Amino acid sequence: MTTKLASFTINGRAAYGAITDEGVVDLSARFGTRWPTLKEVIEADALGELVAAAMEMKADIAVDEITFEIPIPHPEKIICVGVNFPDRNEEYKDGKEAPPNPSLFIRFPRSFTGHGQPLIRPPESPQLDYEGEIVVVIGKGGRRIAEKDALDHVAALSLCNEGTIRDWVRHAKFNVTQGKNFDRTGSIGPWLVPFTDESQLADIKLETRVNGEVRQNDRTSRMIFSFRKIINYISTFTTLVPGDVIVCGTPTGAGARFDPPIWLKPGDVIEVEADGIGVLRNMVEDEV
Amino acid sequence: MTTKLASFTINGRAAYGAITDEGVVDLSARFGTRWPTLKEVIEADALGELVAAAMEMKADIAVDEITFEIPIPHPEKIICVGVNFPDRNEEYKDGKEAPPNPSLFIRFPRSFTGHGQPLIRPPESPQLDYEGEIVVVIGKGGRRIAEKDALDHVAALSLCNEGTIRDWVRHAKFNVTQGKNFDRTGSIGPWLVPFTDESQLADIKLETRVNGEVRQNDRTSRMIFSFRKIINYISTFTTLVPGDVIVCGTPTGAGARFDPPIWLKPGDVIEVEADGIGVLRNMVEDEV
Repeated sequence: MTTKLASFTINGRAAYGAITDEGVVDLSARFGTRWPTLKEVIEADALGELVAAAMEMKADIAVDEITFEIPIPHPEKIICVGVNFPDRNEEYKDGKEAPPNPSLFIRFPRSFTGHGQPLIRPPESPQLDYEGEIVVVIGKGGRRIAEKDALDHVAALSLCNEGTIRDWVRHAKFNVTQGKNFDRTGSIGPWLVPFTDESQLADIKLETRVNGEVRQNDRTSRMIFSFRKIINYISTFTTLVPGDVIVCGTPTGAGARFDPPIWLKPGDVIEVEADGIGVLRNMVEDEV
Repeated sequence: MTTKLASFTINGRAAYGAITDEGVVDLSARFGTRWPTLKEVIEADALGELVAAAMEMKADIAVDEITFEIPIPHPEKIICVGVNFPDRNEEYKDGKEAPPNPSLFIRFPRSFTGHGQPLIRPPESPQLDYEGEIVVVIGKGGRRIAEKDALDHVAALSLCNEGTIRDWVRHAKFNVTQGKNFDRTGSIGPWLVPFTDESQLADIKLETRVNGEVRQNDRTSRMIFSFRKIINYISTFTTLVPGDVIVCGTPTGAGARFDPPIWLKPGDVIEVEADGIGVLRNMVEDEV
């Protein structure tokens, strides 16, 4: 049984489907009129229905024929949590203690690309850096969601390489906006895994490798702000809606952490892996 | 001749039209199939066509029958510029010099409401503050737009009360995200004024009043980062697309500036006015 639901393009057509050992089951061919994208599937609380339907269908496309896209093509929000694993606060070397609330910033969908597509290093800076992270996708919306109820609002999990142009993060007073929003410097995927049980998140390993070398390796049980707390805190100020994407923070070990720093360069392969979710893999290319 | 194009709701229906001395010309009744919202009008470079059409039509709704909404209901991006008028940098009292690049942050559409609707003070904080700003709406998209060409990419102008929950701006390390994104704490509008000439922006007066008292008053010619520079800089990292909203920074004189600070309270009326654009007016209400 597969539980991997991906958004992709094939021959220029946007589609979604299940990724199985036998190939891709094109679910949008069957459900696309009802639910144009996986966002509408989530709004309808129908991820389970899709998975069940896929089990009855045969794969109709080879995986290497599709181009993976970010799983929710146009989420209303992509909210990222900064400084959420031990030692990350120390990386900033600003002498400040860890604050009582999560640091949050926003990325636009176009700052991400899908699994297997190149991360783009722009000509403005050589400081492209990786950050492997867990993604939660909101199912049931809400405001001021209590921590005890927070996981009832998670529809699915995914992975993010929250690629960053490091020097542009400090281009101005406050705010990391510009260093986090260069087009296609990050990735989300490869797919959504429907969320049904807290054990899928509570203590899973999150690892980032560059050209096979482990650079980041930690467990979600060590997060400073838990998934429950993040959902509670964000929903205090903004109403979460189905399909909203929360990128939950990266372990220590980004390239900026090394002395001297090690930036990504064309040809590098970055893999972000988490137990039960999968492996998100991207190469680096220079912008042309 | 009117040049005011507004998005609004009437009897629960979303619509857009021209605001004239005789009332509202419902343009969506005539053009809504072709262009569902003003975003699609801008994508089609058809604001001028709408204005011309409105001149041939009679007003069919009284202005007091409509509820103004934010002019572009679902822009891909709303990017805000911080610290962009003289003395604003000093307000931060952190001893740091003004940086060489604009500080940028992002707001979600749901953090804004339309003209005439209440700004909502949430129960989490009494520190609701105003910031009057000029809004430019992108017409022709682009990446790495040169300063000399930047104004060719502006489709329309509007106003913003970039309402802020001041203590939540400093809730965490870096980033003002949460203090800038409480639902309906800010407003955009009342309408779009099509942009046709640089004189509409180059040196206009921008004033914010609270209960009739002038609190902010400056001219766009004094902006630290010009409209051209802002568009050039933002488009360096992200591709601007039609309907993108850029909120260009506020003059000195927010409530936080006073000693002791003066926060907005229920019943206060805030007006943001700029030459040639109009007056954006909102009251404050407590969240219920």
